[in-house]
Amino acid sequence: MVNAKARAVNGPDSNFHATEIKRRDLDTHDVLIEIKYAGICHSDIHTAHGEWGPVHYPLVPGHEIAGIVKEVGSEVSKYEVDDRVGVGCMVDSCGECENCQNGEEQYCLKGMVGTYAGTDRYGEPTQGGYSTHIVVHEDFVLRIPDNIGLDAAAPLLCAGITTYSPLNHWKASEGKKVAIIGMGGLGHMAVQIANAMGAEVTVLSQTLNKKEDGLKLGATHYYATSDESTFEQLPKTFDLIINTVSANLQLDDYLKLLTLDGTIVNVGAPAEPISLRVANLIGHRRSFAGSAIGGIRETQEMLDFCAEHNIKPQIEMISADQIDEAYERVLASDVKYRFVIDTSTM
Amino acid sequence: MVNAKARAVNGPDSNFHATEIKRRDLDTHDVLIEIKYAGICHSDIHTAHGEWGPVHYPLVPGHEIAGIVKEVGSEVSKYEVDDRVGVGCMVDSCGECENCQNGEEQYCLKGMVGTYAGTDRYGEPTQGGYSTHIVVHEDFVLRIPDNIGLDAAAPLLCAGITTYSPLNHWKASEGKKVAIIGMGGLGHMAVQIANAMGAEVTVLSQTLNKKEDGLKLGATHYYATSDESTFEQLPKTFDLIINTVSANLQLDDYLKLLTLDGTIVNVGAPAEPISLRVANLIGHRRSFAGSAIGGIRETQEMLDFCAEHNIKPQIEMISADQIDEAYERVLASDVKYRFVIDTSTM
Repeated sequence: MVNAKARAVNGPDSNFHATEIKRRDLDTHDVLIEIKYAGICHSDIHTAHGEWGPVHYPLVPGHEIAGIVKEVGSEVSKYEVDDRVGVGCMVDSCGECENCQNGEEQYCLKGMVGTYAGTDRYGEPTQGGYSTHIVVHEDFVLRIPDNIGLDAAAPLLCAGITTYSPLNHWKASEGKKVAIIGMGGLGHMAVQIANAMGAEVTVLSQTLNKKEDGLKLGATHYYATSDESTFEQLPKTFDLIINTVSANLQLDDYLKLLTLDGTIVNVGAPAEPISLRVANLIGHRRSFAGSAIGGIRETQEMLDFCAEHNIKPQIEMISADQIDEAYERVLASDVKYRFVIDTSTM
Repeated sequence: MVNAKARAVNGPDSNFHATEIKRRDLDTHDVLIEIKYAGICHSDIHTAHGEWGPVHYPLVPGHEIAGIVKEVGSEVSKYEVDDRVGVGCMVDSCGECENCQNGEEQYCLKGMVGTYAGTDRYGEPTQGGYSTHIVVHEDFVLRIPDNIGLDAAAPLLCAGITTYSPLNHWKASEGKKVAIIGMGGLGHMAVQIANAMGAEVTVLSQTLNKKEDGLKLGATHYYATSDESTFEQLPKTFDLIINTVSANLQLDDYLKLLTLDGTIVNVGAPAEPISLRVANLIGHRRSFAGSAIGGIRETQEMLDFCAEHNIKPQIEMISADQIDEAYERVLASDVKYRFVIDTSTM
């Protein structure tokens, strides 16, 4: 057992406190990682607050994890001590179902094991990355390319793959017009990735406050959705819209922006049902779809793609004592663009 | 001008009455068709009742038209007198936009011209197939294969293509599991077409009343959606679901029946918005889509496909005096499976 320092909440209304958790002894294929940085994802907040259903408290969130291999199990073949590695939103899956066999572990038919708030194969609750150490099966460990700093790598493990996967699946590429709804942690990654894939990128953000950043990161156009004329200017324009905003939006307004065979992909789920007029789908054979993170193979591909194209998140580094404050600022959209915890302050 | 006998309604609450309408003199590329049979589509009822927005009355519905060429314009090259031909839901489009150029005239960016309740290129309201004659530009006329009777051909022009097109676009084929929601005019065509494309077909109908027919037409499985256990039995089963039912349904129940990357395609639009939980899309990268009829090239392909595979609608022939009664029976789902008007009774 390794004793790891961590930050946990004791309930939906609790603040974070310093604690110690035990990480399991290494099984044959396990890797012990010393966590250097952990990103703060909006999902962490939803889960910590119990908004996505009951969770086991105390809870240590965090599924954007980057660090260094400290020890490997007896049969580990993929990693060695001192390797630079990452862990994303899942730490296990059945490995046997059709989806796992196809490298789509995130859609495991038995349900993937979340990095936190899940139950591991030993029956224990999983605890996430707001911690100094974690033990993970080598099949769910990613290799961080040398030219990506560990601090910048952390947010790629969720924000990066969550946007890369639908852009890849729905083939963002040269000649395609892609819009990104929301210019936050996910949105600012999506802009860079879609641009690097060759698409013409438009940001649809509530205001023009982050326009300069958006254009710098690779967007060609930037519109405020609070301005109604935006929707009048852009009918039948986009082949693909990635919606990074979890809040319920007027989906019909956005459907009309899609060209023939266009698709809106939600990567976040609003708590309430969303409604739409089917006529807006039928009129131009449009689709409304959803996408969840990415498989392990695709996550590695994303890391390598980001390394090749020099894509990285803009981060604000915080200490472990600042997590509560950071949560408040995320909820107020007051972060450019991702908080990353320096775990040496645990 | 040709004087054509027709049946029209004078307003949303009006019954049909016999009337005479004028069909335009043949322009250079026009074809004069003596209509032999006209199918009754649910859209006719919605439009006649003014449920899809205001229409120009008197209105002659009908967009499932089969007949014989009687005369051709001076530059018509595709058809000759005595050819067996059909006309579907559209009679014109701009011909110049990207979608028209790609043979997707139904998605014409300037809007296709509907066979009825539209406005033709001469500024006149279009009148449909409940009539003895119609004049149509040759580019919107289809050839009826010799081994399909004109009576059976009529419903293919809407019910046939409306189901063929999404089955074709979303690649119903061997190894795919396809479900058809609704066993009506469209549903009973979709079952035959999906089966001929090689898919394993399941019917999801409100009751088991038409089970025998469904199995005979090519379905392998048949479930009643009024039985809640149906939804418990079929999680993550279908690659593609074609929803032929316009009424608003509990979409979430059906989304859960889709496998990874599965799609539900609506071919009818409920009057009210439909709601769904985005989590049901994200969980397995599912899509909710819409599809409208098909292009002219694809409609011809569908007719040839039906001829090759001996696919035809089951029809109940009626006289022109029975249209009102037929409408009532369609609304009561009391038809197996499509009413066709014998226009010799006009």
